[in-house]
Amino acid sequence: MSQKMDKKRAVSPTRKENYSEWFQECVKVSQLAEPSMVRGCMIFKPHGCALWEEMKGQLDARFKQLRVKNVYMPLFIPVKELGKEAEHIEGFAKECAVVTHHRLILDSEGKLVVDPEAKMEEPYVVRPTSELLFGDAMSRWIHSYRDLPMLLNQWANVVRWEMRTRPFLRTAEFLWQEGHTAHATKEEANQFAQKMLGEYARFVRDVLAISVVEGKKPESEKFPGANITYTIEAMMQDGKALQAGTSHDLGQNFAKASMIRFTDQEGAIQFAHTTSWGVTTRLIGALMMVHGDDDGAVLPPRVSPIHVGVVPFLMKEGDSSVILGFIDRLRGALESKNYHGSPIRVEVDFSDDRASEKAWRFKKMGIPHLIQIGMKEVSENRITLVERDLLDAPKEILQAGDYIEKVVDLLDKMQSRMFQNSKEFREKQTFFAHTRAQAVTFLENEVGFVECFIAQDSAIEKELKEKYSVTVRCIPLETCEKTAPCIFSGKPGQKALLAKAY
Amino acid sequence: MSQKMDKKRAVSPTRKENYSEWFQECVKVSQLAEPSMVRGCMIFKPHGCALWEEMKGQLDARFKQLRVKNVYMPLFIPVKELGKEAEHIEGFAKECAVVTHHRLILDSEGKLVVDPEAKMEEPYVVRPTSELLFGDAMSRWIHSYRDLPMLLNQWANVVRWEMRTRPFLRTAEFLWQEGHTAHATKEEANQFAQKMLGEYARFVRDVLAISVVEGKKPESEKFPGANITYTIEAMMQDGKALQAGTSHDLGQNFAKASMIRFTDQEGAIQFAHTTSWGVTTRLIGALMMVHGDDDGAVLPPRVSPIHVGVVPFLMKEGDSSVILGFIDRLRGALESKNYHGSPIRVEVDFSDDRASEKAWRFKKMGIPHLIQIGMKEVSENRITLVERDLLDAPKEILQAGDYIEKVVDLLDKMQSRMFQNSKEFREKQTFFAHTRAQAVTFLENEVGFVECFIAQDSAIEKELKEKYSVTVRCIPLETCEKTAPCIFSGKPGQKALLAKAY
Repeated sequence: MSQKMDKKRAVSPTRKENYSEWFQECVKVSQLAEPSMVRGCMIFKPHGCALWEEMKGQLDARFKQLRVKNVYMPLFIPVKELGKEAEHIEGFAKECAVVTHHRLILDSEGKLVVDPEAKMEEPYVVRPTSELLFGDAMSRWIHSYRDLPMLLNQWANVVRWEMRTRPFLRTAEFLWQEGHTAHATKEEANQFAQKMLGEYARFVRDVLAISVVEGKKPESEKFPGANITYTIEAMMQDGKALQAGTSHDLGQNFAKASMIRFTDQEGAIQFAHTTSWGVTTRLIGALMMVHGDDDGAVLPPRVSPIHVGVVPFLMKEGDSSVILGFIDRLRGALESKNYHGSPIRVEVDFSDDRASEKAWRFKKMGIPHLIQIGMKEVSENRITLVERDLLDAPKEILQAGDYIEKVVDLLDKMQSRMFQNSKEFREKQTFFAHTRAQAVTFLENEVGFVECFIAQDSAIEKELKEKYSVTVRCIPLETCEKTAPCIFSGKPGQKALLAKAY
Repeated sequence: MSQKMDKKRAVSPTRKENYSEWFQECVKVSQLAEPSMVRGCMIFKPHGCALWEEMKGQLDARFKQLRVKNVYMPLFIPVKELGKEAEHIEGFAKECAVVTHHRLILDSEGKLVVDPEAKMEEPYVVRPTSELLFGDAMSRWIHSYRDLPMLLNQWANVVRWEMRTRPFLRTAEFLWQEGHTAHATKEEANQFAQKMLGEYARFVRDVLAISVVEGKKPESEKFPGANITYTIEAMMQDGKALQAGTSHDLGQNFAKASMIRFTDQEGAIQFAHTTSWGVTTRLIGALMMVHGDDDGAVLPPRVSPIHVGVVPFLMKEGDSSVILGFIDRLRGALESKNYHGSPIRVEVDFSDDRASEKAWRFKKMGIPHLIQIGMKEVSENRITLVERDLLDAPKEILQAGDYIEKVVDLLDKMQSRMFQNSKEFREKQTFFAHTRAQAVTFLENEVGFVECFIAQDSAIEKELKEKYSVTVRCIPLETCEKTAPCIFSGKPGQKALLAKAY
């Protein structure tokens, strides 16, 4: 991630100058999204929409491998039904979009207004989650142990009326998937919740090239109503944590609230054991904040909607057909290659913008390979390659045939480099604190995660939050069996990660 | 579509007894969807969701072939912005879900209610269409002729507060795609609108096996603000018409309202010429109403989420492993076959329900091939096949190897039969009326389309609607150049189709 400091970068301010503003600007120059006329809601531009489609497609295929089936639930939830699940409401449902009327009319001045006559008998909220509707459906769809496990998922938009919004990370409307499953036994439900966390972790590591820690949330940070909340936590380049995916073992709590019951093999009626799990378009924010640099987005090859961006250098009128013919053959050869189950995706910029403008556009969008081709390249049967994560390295000149032969390997290597960078950064910025003093010194002076033994104690957590804006991000699964005295209270503690978080 | 009348059917009432109730019941037994606790909103069950995903996937691939790019626009639209497009509002935007508040609270009795303090300064509607947001975005994204054509599309949920709803055909929330394009010239925009109509027509004919007429809407039925509205009209089994897809040439009307301008090659500023086009989950309703029979859904192979449903006959304990081994090999062989770019999709019902129950479940779901396998079949290396559209024909007994070899061909033949049935029915039930009296006799006594010459005349159309509940569905493109005296007024008329419609 080192860059020559004297070179002008495409994003201003740089990460060092102002990480938060860099992020906003980076979203913009990368062509992923832009703000809309609707407060807190984004427009996913073609590049951002294609990126989400790619994530969605790959995750969906993984879910289907696990025999999860998709359903689609209504956008609205009656407020009176929501009221029945008081425990869950505490968590998230209060700030939401409430639909109270069903008609607009023109007033006496010809202005379009809400028709006061069209007030609904029962108001609805726009779903902040579809949990309630899944619970209701499962209570109807599940009769006996034969119907279990029931493994459902939904891809949808949801709305939470956030006061402070930030593109991808916190928006009023966002896109997500929510999985809901019901099982016959406590053990099976818990195993499934962990399996989904593992699935997320593999996807985020292998495809998004983001190093994450798998862990449990402490009691204080659990999803309301969950027995256990599992999480994967990633570290952004400013050292803050971002929850990249979450999976809940809901025990029988949710089944009891929604009356999800089944007749077991002995003929007795039992409550099911349920799970829920989700990832959101936040993942795009995470991608940007982990891999982005001062020239824009850097997309891992395995998720980039375009693998190779081609810029033709068309200097003279007569050159075009020769160069475009060369590009056509190159594109054909690349598209016949199999890159993790998909052809290499090539985009040629045919616009009549200047070549340098086109090249910068691909760079800012984060396209892994930038290929430049002019008459010189054609006459020597070569291509000029810039790898997006090595922007300051000298351009590579390759024989076209060599490039075609090596392209899959080159993309894989870039993917590994990006993951390694993310992993090394997280490890480097994770500090093991033996004492309270060490932890405090780190939190006051450094960015990153503090690893330490801590007891689950709301007073300590409150102090950490108030003094250092820090929360217990998770108790890593790898070390959750270990205990040692809490560095704050001396009580028996578990190894946990503390950090500021998005 | 003939069936022995003495046999008990899975759907009651039958189509003959009560077509409208048959439809509702058919949706239910086919496992496609069910009503929800939200007025006018459906739950797409796994089978219905998979069917829509299949349609969506195939349409999306077609759009991408045409270089259309997907975007995602916000769910909400500010009422004040909507007010600016008065002409469009007339059409559809008045009955919609209006968001006026952003918070719920517990009242003094602990009941969850809308927080009166949390009234929004500006109300929002849940998008009935995203036209306005597309227009606004295009006005920002288009600068010069170099940015044209701009070809965008969105897959999304939309809401129209319908009073009377019917599954798939008319629901408060529905899923759709809306394409929006901008072009430099009038001709190019018109050609694109026609190209998309052609794309829809091919998809609906070739994949959904539904015969449609491509036509123009008369002035009275045009989309508000369109210069020309193109439509594809299908005939349901009760003879009513259903608009299966629509494409609008919006001229410069929409560009003027949204200020979509570009600098042309001479440096002059011009308004763009735009189009919009869409299909919705209505198509699932059309599938059911065109192909469904008194035993449930009948899905055309090219869109069915499952091609082959396998029912194992497990009579004795010891048989299982032999039968399941046989099924495993069969499934493997089928899945290695390429059926229109996808492997043959096989689902084996492993549940311990009775074999006849499983068979009926697949039939009601409309799965093209039902395969039954017991010990007898295994010992003779055979399968028993039931083709869904030939339920009353004798079961076919085939050597397993023969079936594997012929399966693609058999599915293709079923696809053709279904299309032919739809086409023959539409042709048989289309009556050419030379005179007003002939038209009236048909409209009063028969079901189907009346083809006749008619002048565009609002008085005539009003009378047709009031007396016979009939509208001019379209002026078929194939014959739109022909003119002859209107059978109602004697004025110059065009050949049109009249029908009752969904």
